Amino acid sequence: MSERPAPRWDALYTNVNLATMVGGYGELRDGAIAVAGGRIAWLGPRTQAEGSAAVVHDCGGAWLTPGLVDCHTHIVHAGNRSDEFEDRLQGVGYEEIARRGGGILSTVRATRAAGVDELLRQSAPRVASLLEEGVTTLEIKSGYGLDLASEEAMLRAARRIGESMPVTVATTFLGAHALPPEFAGRADDYIDDVCRRMLPALAAKGLVDAVDAFCERIGFSNAQTERVFEAARALGLPVKLHAEQLSDQGGAQLVARYRGLSADHLEHVSAQGVAAMAQAGTVAVLLPGAFYFLRETVAPPVAALRAAGVPIALATDCNPGTSPMASILLVLNMACTLWRLTPQEALAGCTIHAARALGLQDEIGTLEVGKRADFALWDIVRPADLAYGFGFNPCRAVVHGGHFRPRGALTATPAA
Amino acid sequence: MSERPAPRWDALYTNVNLATMVGGYGELRDGAIAVAGGRIAWLGPRTQAEGSAAVVHDCGGAWLTPGLVDCHTHIVHAGNRSDEFEDRLQGVGYEEIARRGGGILSTVRATRAAGVDELLRQSAPRVASLLEEGVTTLEIKSGYGLDLASEEAMLRAARRIGESMPVTVATTFLGAHALPPEFAGRADDYIDDVCRRMLPALAAKGLVDAVDAFCERIGFSNAQTERVFEAARALGLPVKLHAEQLSDQGGAQLVARYRGLSADHLEHVSAQGVAAMAQAGTVAVLLPGAFYFLRETVAPPVAALRAAGVPIALATDCNPGTSPMASILLVLNMACTLWRLTPQEALAGCTIHAARALGLQDEIGTLEVGKRADFALWDIVRPADLAYGFGFNPCRAVVHGGHFRPRGALTATPAA
Ligand SMILES: [Zn+2]
Ligand SMILES: [Zn+2]
Repeated sequence: MSERPAPRWDALYTNVNLATMVGGYGELRDGAIAVAGGRIAWLGPRTQAEGSAAVVHDCGGAWLTPGLVDCHTHIVHAGNRSDEFEDRLQGVGYEEIARRGGGILSTVRATRAAGVDELLRQSAPRVASLLEEGVTTLEIKSGYGLDLASEEAMLRAARRIGESMPVTVATTFLGAHALPPEFAGRADDYIDDVCRRMLPALAAKGLVDAVDAFCERIGFSNAQTERVFEAARALGLPVKLHAEQLSDQGGAQLVARYRGLSADHLEHVSAQGVAAMAQAGTVAVLLPGAFYFLRETVAPPVAALRAAGVPIALATDCNPGTSPMASILLVLNMACTLWRLTPQEALAGCTIHAARALGLQDEIGTLEVGKRADFALWDIVRPADLAYGFGFNPCRAVVHGGHFRPRGALTATPAA
Repeated sequence: MSERPAPRWDALYTNVNLATMVGGYGELRDGAIAVAGGRIAWLGPRTQAEGSAAVVHDCGGAWLTPGLVDCHTHIVHAGNRSDEFEDRLQGVGYEEIARRGGGILSTVRATRAAGVDELLRQSAPRVASLLEEGVTTLEIKSGYGLDLASEEAMLRAARRIGESMPVTVATTFLGAHALPPEFAGRADDYIDDVCRRMLPALAAKGLVDAVDAFCERIGFSNAQTERVFEAARALGLPVKLHAEQLSDQGGAQLVARYRGLSADHLEHVSAQGVAAMAQAGTVAVLLPGAFYFLRETVAPPVAALRAAGVPIALATDCNPGTSPMASILLVLNMACTLWRLTPQEALAGCTIHAARALGLQDEIGTLEVGKRADFALWDIVRPADLAYGFGFNPCRAVVHGGHFRPRGALTATPAA
């Protein structure tokens, strides 16, 4: 009779219910999951966990999901726009606010004035808020610098977040977010600068994981967006797009034509846009925070996206102008409450489908052997609780790359 | 020249901006505030703080507001209704949900089955969520017991929260919340029981600070509500009312006639109701969480309430059926976003006016010498930030009755 040595795991989480999200959902009750070398080494029924582990966490019947993925944020920025928010509610008109220097360019001014350290200092509390809710992967866009040095500072701040906080960061260059004042009336010249100078320089420094643009009447045209996508293609970088948020610009078809990772917002997407996305495998990233904050009334066509088999992801869109939010759990509730997604769809939207929206579907987004050991542990009765409650965080602990972190480790203030 | 001994303070918070909320708002920048014996002993410009203090907190330019007051909650209950939420979103009809035992009676069943300890265990995380956001006073209603013993258990759990957690609890007896199944078809008999047996017994045990009812087509009639108010008056207890949430029942006029503390919800209140409240000094408690979660479209008449000079308070309405939320900051944002309150009105709504809605305006709700030392310290640039962001908690620390507590003290999980 030969002796088989027991496998050695770094950690075993047992007495736990697993929402694996494999194939879009998937549950394994009374299970266990093992971690080795920062990866998921095994998972299955609790009673079949036969390896020994350096650390055993008895989860007491809690639920464990993949670490949440916030796949669309502008979380790195300086200043906020609460003054404008207050002015508007006190009856000040849009023109007067613009005259006072409000709007996106006020964020551009504040961001340009801040260096990498200051951007990091101001953004870290927002990131911590997400991380306390189980987020383990975070997309961060540039787009408030709008010149080479300031866009670089934003992307460096994003990378520093990934290095200094327990989260994986995917960066997106969004030079084509708005027209900087020094290019007023010369949008094509600015797009030249974005394509020929800024993007190649930032990509060469390894700061760009993907390329995005704001295709809209008040942003850049379909043709200008395509030039950005051509520049990205030349560098071998994947694209995504802020598409059809306020009007149908054919952006969904355009980004699908470039086999883009995602088309984001989509309130006004056409049937043709949906069909093109389905064909290309482009993910729909829906952003209920902006829809709520802007009091929009036209919802994205959830039923059509479902029917076409387009994967639906959800994200915070964390930004100072249209979605000053830092809660992925609130996004789940808003998607269900405002747009009637099911709680399972909502959870898939910030796990498996959000991972795909970042091109990281082989690494994260589900509980499967070989994937990164990113998960969140929840004091809930059933997974639907995550979408049902709002303004309530039942997260007990988070595991990122195998490293266990209890709730509160990032946001608690030291006693004075 | 006589020597005047310097006053002795327990603590001095200095280098801080004070949102005093006196008279509805009020700011004092670069100020300081002193605490002695659990009360506010002094406040004024930083440079004029002349007493010595056992502890000095340099607040580094943060903002300090009165402790927040959540003046309408059903936070003590057992179970949740996420199953129903999920069923509904998966297309199950209301009738089928009722057949499955859903709705308020499912919460009644769970609450009746739980003892005081279990109610406390399940409710404490929700309470902690509010307390981490600067809440220092919390109203808690009964109303899921609907029999004497179970209503008593709820109110005892509420009192235990006030004894075991750093928060002041005001209890409200809401026996007339729904008709218990054993009284089906006999609403008047149940109201008899509420008035003659339950309320006197609970009041005699010191468990009732105020009396409430649900006056609605699907709740109790105006005449039944009035009987409850008569019973309260006989015991010298103040009243408040769930009024005009779904339809105009003349509840606002009724509660005003009894000089009630507040009329709550009010989406469908009439001009006469508003006028009666203004005349009686009855506070309007608006509950945007329920409005949002139920996807209501008729907003309460904010302009008419303003014009009539009715104080507007805001609260979470934390409850498992129509507002499963545990964030007072999200209430501020929703009131501004959905109903166009100004950020100052929103902050007044959960400080000075919420205090009045509980009859505690002489004790709490503003920063004034002699009031209880209940405050919250915020890492914000301006008070409007509290309403502008959503799903983000900038609270750095909370002081309740003079006791300082850093952020995270209640929700952090111990490292495993
Ligand atoms: Zn965006
Ligand atoms: Zn209520």
